[in-house]
Amino acid sequence: MFSAPDLAAALDRLKAAAPLVHNITNTVVANFTANALLAVGASPAMVQAEEEAGEFVLRAQALVVNIGTLSAPQRAAMRVAVAAASPAGIPWVLDPVAAGATAYRLDTARELLARRPTVLRGNASEILALAGQGGASRGVDSTAAAEMARDAARMLARQGGIAVAVTGAVDYVTDGEAMLGIANGHPMLTRVTGTGCTATALTGAFLGAGLPGVAAVASALTLLGVAAEDAASGAAGPGSFAVALLDRLHAMDGATLAARARWR
Amino acid sequence: MFSAPDLAAALDRLKAAAPLVHNITNTVVANFTANALLAVGASPAMVQAEEEAGEFVLRAQALVVNIGTLSAPQRAAMRVAVAAASPAGIPWVLDPVAAGATAYRLDTARELLARRPTVLRGNASEILALAGQGGASRGVDSTAAAEMARDAARMLARQGGIAVAVTGAVDYVTDGEAMLGIANGHPMLTRVTGTGCTATALTGAFLGAGLPGVAAVASALTLLGVAAEDAASGAAGPGSFAVALLDRLHAMDGATLAARARWR
Amino acid sequence: MFSAPDLAAALDRLKAAAPLVHNITNTVVANFTANALLAVGASPAMVQAEEEAGEFVLRAQALVVNIGTLSAPQRAAMRVAVAAASPAGIPWVLDPVAAGATAYRLDTARELLARRPTVLRGNASEILALAGQGGASRGVDSTAAAEMARDAARMLARQGGIAVAVTGAVDYVTDGEAMLGIANGHPMLTRVTGTGCTATALTGAFLGAGLPGVAAVASALTLLGVAAEDAASGAAGPGSFAVALLDRLHAMDGATLAARARWR
Repeated sequence: MFSAPDLAAALDRLKAAAPLVHNITNTVVANFTANALLAVGASPAMVQAEEEAGEFVLRAQALVVNIGTLSAPQRAAMRVAVAAASPAGIPWVLDPVAAGATAYRLDTARELLARRPTVLRGNASEILALAGQGGASRGVDSTAAAEMARDAARMLARQGGIAVAVTGAVDYVTDGEAMLGIANGHPMLTRVTGTGCTATALTGAFLGAGLPGVAAVASALTLLGVAAEDAASGAAGPGSFAVALLDRLHAMDGATLAARARWR
Repeated sequence: MFSAPDLAAALDRLKAAAPLVHNITNTVVANFTANALLAVGASPAMVQAEEEAGEFVLRAQALVVNIGTLSAPQRAAMRVAVAAASPAGIPWVLDPVAAGATAYRLDTARELLARRPTVLRGNASEILALAGQGGASRGVDSTAAAEMARDAARMLARQGGIAVAVTGAVDYVTDGEAMLGIANGHPMLTRVTGTGCTATALTGAFLGAGLPGVAAVASALTLLGVAAEDAASGAAGPGSFAVALLDRLHAMDGATLAARARWR
Repeated sequence: MFSAPDLAAALDRLKAAAPLVHNITNTVVANFTANALLAVGASPAMVQAEEEAGEFVLRAQALVVNIGTLSAPQRAAMRVAVAAASPAGIPWVLDPVAAGATAYRLDTARELLARRPTVLRGNASEILALAGQGGASRGVDSTAAAEMARDAARMLARQGGIAVAVTGAVDYVTDGEAMLGIANGHPMLTRVTGTGCTATALTGAFLGAGLPGVAAVASALTLLGVAAEDAASGAAGPGSFAVALLDRLHAMDGATLAARARWR
């Protein structure tokens, strides 16, 4: 059921595959997530017109759907991309940004979740909202600790037969039964916009390299967490941290990643 | 009437409040302004669909409206957000980017201004255009010195009963009567895109922390100016300057800010 | 016919002219290309609503059209901007991002190309697709070496009476007869998103300074290549490389640029 990834092999596989990752994402983080994907050796493309999203996704090895700056045209593109990806066996990951903050977001996120992404990755507030257990969300930042959303994550994973990750100070990954805790990371990740979205995009890269859902998201979260630990040492603040994060993602090798993982 | 802020208290208050700032802004600067807001301890959200902007803004402590990459859907979202924010007492700041450059922009900026933002912040060309004194605007960069727009700023402030800032080598803030000059800053700010938009976003953060209009924008402009002075020392060019600017915004404490202010 | 630019004079002319460059471009690279334009002394504006693009372009000295995140509203804005620019003698450059990846892109890129941009700049896959010689494109990254698209570039240049550049490890610029090879650059350019778009934007800057098509694009590609060589020395990875690239673009002077050019 739950297979923890061989991190060294996973990263080597990603670099060898150089997967084309189709992103339908928000305008705030498009640049940073594209650079993160390039840093780890993937080939990002941001294609989000309804007219072409369904055609384009068939060229890609994975699809990333992120509702951060949702709009009606983008929602239409998400629908056609997912409708094309699923029957073609192209894996996809859903990032339900601020799902609990408005009815429009919650409705959209639930509709997408019902189409069964390979992986769902959100913060605690988002996962709780999707599980119908959310209080009022504050915005894009979580008001709940990841620990509070573990049961909700497990339930969503079981219901959909998907992998679910809830990220926070410790990240949790579940297939609906087992639960992996990933203690890598650094608080500076909360002071740079789009690091959660980057975790989702990197999950898309590992999916595109052929890893199954749990392995892909666990690899992505560990990779981002270890790179953040390295980036924080010597960073003068969030500006230089974000720059160093891209450098460290690029420099990471499989053996280092495996050695540095702090899993529970 | 005009109350110059206690800068140390203002910044401490912002950090304690960690306000949720709702931005409807342009695609060029969305990432940088989100990172600037995170750097000073605010929580940014970019939500710009008409379907949800009116609902979302009620969760926020302040609203930032920036017409930099205006479109019909975005204009509709601005309308619903402002219509919801005003009766709820949620303060908002308007950035009329390149207001004089096209009829579409001028018309939109005037419509928004008529709804009485808490603060209006623009460069000299934009403030002159809104006051009906504009010659042809060149684009997003001002062709006039801030000094030329002081009278226009005072008039707009008086007409609307709002705070108005005109930014340039020296920034000016007025409530329609008094006029504060802020001499902090660095020419490198003109070689990075979105620094004016960042001044506006930071104004939103101080508004969200409960400061009144004049105090909020004066605090934001001084904070950005002092951080820019620090960032410029040691920067090798505009790339490293922009990175250091985020680092310096993050590191700034109230006492340093107050000691470094150069007001006239 | 083909006039190789005097690089020192070209860069000096750009800095003196400080042209206003109107960009209708993709959301991924809007920030980075605006910063690159500011770094070299140009004044960028991103204006992409159909309601104002035709009016705004008449204030600009050059227009940049980039289909990276194409949408129906943006396509409409491109049409009105090009329709206004051409009769007014305002030069423009077309970047047909991923032209071969979908029918929507290829159709749009061909329609724009038929309106005869001053310069067409693409990677090998894009140029081959526009010449009707494309196999399946992989995404935004080229699957073909620039050398494979030289004949296609020459054909497109001759057909349109335009300048065409195909970029890669070596860049090629042609007017339909002569062919200039530019060997400057660094592989790290392929690990940062939007460097091709930046080459296009810088071409717009040189066009806006009054250089003819071949000279403008050859100057832009050499400038970007030399700056990349400098930025790569000392960069710890793609994050710090991108920051240094802006610094180096800003610091470049005409004499250095001319001395460092590696043309074939």
